[in-house]
Amino acid sequence: MDNQQLFEDTICAISTPLGRGGIAVARVSGREAVPVVARCWQGADLGKMSSHTAHWGRIIDNADGSVLDEVVLTLFRAPRSFTGEDVIEISCHGSPWIQQQLLRVLVGCGCRIATAGEFTRRAFANGRMDLSQAEAVADVIASSSQASHRIAMNQMRGAFSRQIGELRDSLLEFVSLMELELDFSEEEVEFADRSHLLQLATGIHDTIDHLASSFAVGNAIKNGIPVAIVGETNAGKSTLLNLLLGDERAIVSDIHGTTRDVIEDTITIGGVLYRFIDTAGIRDTADSIETLGIERTFRKLSDAAIVLWVIDGTTATSDLQAIASKILPRCEGKSLIAVVNKDDIIDPAQRDSTRSSLQSLLPQGASHVFISARGNSNVETLLDLLRQAASLPENDLGEVIVTNARHHEALTKASQALARAIDGLQQGISGDFVSQDIRECMHYLGEITGEITTTDILTQIFSHFCIGK
Amino acid sequence: MDNQQLFEDTICAISTPLGRGGIAVARVSGREAVPVVARCWQGADLGKMSSHTAHWGRIIDNADGSVLDEVVLTLFRAPRSFTGEDVIEISCHGSPWIQQQLLRVLVGCGCRIATAGEFTRRAFANGRMDLSQAEAVADVIASSSQASHRIAMNQMRGAFSRQIGELRDSLLEFVSLMELELDFSEEEVEFADRSHLLQLATGIHDTIDHLASSFAVGNAIKNGIPVAIVGETNAGKSTLLNLLLGDERAIVSDIHGTTRDVIEDTITIGGVLYRFIDTAGIRDTADSIETLGIERTFRKLSDAAIVLWVIDGTTATSDLQAIASKILPRCEGKSLIAVVNKDDIIDPAQRDSTRSSLQSLLPQGASHVFISARGNSNVETLLDLLRQAASLPENDLGEVIVTNARHHEALTKASQALARAIDGLQQGISGDFVSQDIRECMHYLGEITGEITTTDILTQIFSHFCIGK
Repeated sequence: MDNQQLFEDTICAISTPLGRGGIAVARVSGREAVPVVARCWQGADLGKMSSHTAHWGRIIDNADGSVLDEVVLTLFRAPRSFTGEDVIEISCHGSPWIQQQLLRVLVGCGCRIATAGEFTRRAFANGRMDLSQAEAVADVIASSSQASHRIAMNQMRGAFSRQIGELRDSLLEFVSLMELELDFSEEEVEFADRSHLLQLATGIHDTIDHLASSFAVGNAIKNGIPVAIVGETNAGKSTLLNLLLGDERAIVSDIHGTTRDVIEDTITIGGVLYRFIDTAGIRDTADSIETLGIERTFRKLSDAAIVLWVIDGTTATSDLQAIASKILPRCEGKSLIAVVNKDDIIDPAQRDSTRSSLQSLLPQGASHVFISARGNSNVETLLDLLRQAASLPENDLGEVIVTNARHHEALTKASQALARAIDGLQQGISGDFVSQDIRECMHYLGEITGEITTTDILTQIFSHFCIGK
Repeated sequence: MDNQQLFEDTICAISTPLGRGGIAVARVSGREAVPVVARCWQGADLGKMSSHTAHWGRIIDNADGSVLDEVVLTLFRAPRSFTGEDVIEISCHGSPWIQQQLLRVLVGCGCRIATAGEFTRRAFANGRMDLSQAEAVADVIASSSQASHRIAMNQMRGAFSRQIGELRDSLLEFVSLMELELDFSEEEVEFADRSHLLQLATGIHDTIDHLASSFAVGNAIKNGIPVAIVGETNAGKSTLLNLLLGDERAIVSDIHGTTRDVIEDTITIGGVLYRFIDTAGIRDTADSIETLGIERTFRKLSDAAIVLWVIDGTTATSDLQAIASKILPRCEGKSLIAVVNKDDIIDPAQRDSTRSSLQSLLPQGASHVFISARGNSNVETLLDLLRQAASLPENDLGEVIVTNARHHEALTKASQALARAIDGLQQGISGDFVSQDIRECMHYLGEITGEITTTDILTQIFSHFCIGK
């Protein structure tokens, strides 16, 4: 889709969630939005309507002249609209049938059904937001936890763009000085003090690296921190999971019963999403531990950031060691929590023996907790341990966290280019080579905010949006 | 819930369908809507805002002062709003998480979550619409075919109310004359000519009966015309059904893939909804025709208005008679269409023999058609026959059709009371008895439009609404 087509067409879509509700909102955007909608509108004169005003009226079905619906129409005149074009929002009765017919009528008036993300793409094309802000719109809509929401809101409101912009400005000043020197190269002047330049470049490099490295955390927050629950089949793995999920459901359904997405096995603790990786239970006997299913469990375990090793509190210490020898080598580099279940039915001697056994078995940094999943006891302590294991930075609104793989890739490339520039500066390499590396670094930063972009990249980005946004 | 509480509280709900979308709309209504929302609003001064204007701004989470979302807020000042109270609509990003948090924030500001239909109930209580119009709002949202939509729209726009109002006015004039006579009874004056009164009452009675009898059609249009497909198991019953349903799906998915409700086995033909009644196939042999499953099929058949008897075109004429003898007695009073399937593989002799056999077997008024469900041939003719069998009146916007069981009941009672009055007039019974019957008739008409109502009836009516409407 070229820019020409982007701007000639008047697009329409239902912007509210699909389904039946009290009301639904159709959005129309384009240079011709007003004359196009006027063809099916019976009410105040659209041409004379002020921007940002709402009007009651009727949508007339152009097929037979009947009244399709009584609606409230709101006009947002360019450029003071979401897309920067004239935008009309039509709030109709929320029947799927009416929504569908309304689109048919709008198409009959000369609209085209919008592609996914096309409204936001126009907002970007019209300079209403930069590319990382546009991407954040989709992230805001997709967010399902406080932490991911805050990061996305922060990005949508431009915190990330500002930081990238500042870095580009610094680099631009830097490269200008370098290139000025080149112009005067025969006079051998040095406008920029090399050690100062080196210091500046290193500082920028550190910031870019810091941003790039925040992606590990950002990605975990956005997609959920992967947690594997492993243990013997009768250890209480699923009781524990249901307990955790059940709590979550109760909290969510408190206000609004049915909004929770049907994604199995994710829970939000302290505003952070945890995503449970389904693993097959480890068999009771040590003999069958080598079966294919168990190997699969261990392979899945490698995706986890946190491992909950659920132990039946009544397990004999010798069996515990056998299982530990299989599980613990797979947990290197992961946060490990040993969860001793069935604490309600084990005697103090057993508890002490398990505890001391675990203390000798568990690696440095791992923790353990005695709970009763059935009795719902000590689960709060487990939640605290999960929170600690996630080791997320404080929810600091000032801190920019990268959650987008495309941004991460661009930052990584920017960092590499800048590293070459720094290397060049240190080795006293000719200014034009250094400035070329810095230009490359700026190019990658520009890809993030969309100063530098291609139609392919844009199509790829916006195809992941909702229709109607 | 008493009126006091209805009007003191500020209510809020998500009015758009549940789920994820580009945007979602929260609606707030109440005398205190402006000061309540002001507690979480960062933007233009709500107190100074004109009615029917839209404003960009931020919702602040009162729990921690963070920005929950960037939104567009539209203010509708009383009485120029849906409910007749101050109404604020907040258009936020359509993530389920944001929608849920927005309700939490609004509750924190002093709102109460609205009960189902509470916005419309307030609109009724504040005189913005009468009861039958309020009920039509729910019908408009529930409509899934052009015919049911038109009837509901017509009712919402007041056509039914106007007709009931005219009837009440005529009766009021009538009863006033009667009661004036009673006041002057000692003077033996007769203000009203009895034969004229009788004519008037009979006319009104006819209109009420006509309205009441339209319920049969109205109910079929609203809930779908019940169609039973019966026939031998290998006759092509399910191929035919899938063919019909498949066509419908193709039409619906044309513009808007996923809006269709997941109600199995309903199709819309010519804007009218048909609801297929699932019946077990009749076995091949005449011997097993008496089994329990077949009896169940025949019981279900009694709910149908239309019966599609699907016949395998290759069936021998003798077998055809055996099946007909079981099916046809159950089809009295129903529209019957014999659908001879597999027309693509039968020879002309067989076709002629089946045709003449059917002509002698089928009762007056029944029709037959030869089709090939697999080859999709002659299906259009079948659709035409279905349309005719439904024998619906023309889609005349002027014609009022009753679709609501409550209205039907009230009309029936009104008709009975008026019949007693007419009887009394004919028998020269004392005017005060006649006027009592007419008052009763008016009472029932008043129940429809809500002039006469109880809290129980209102609660019952509005509990079937969506939340947020």
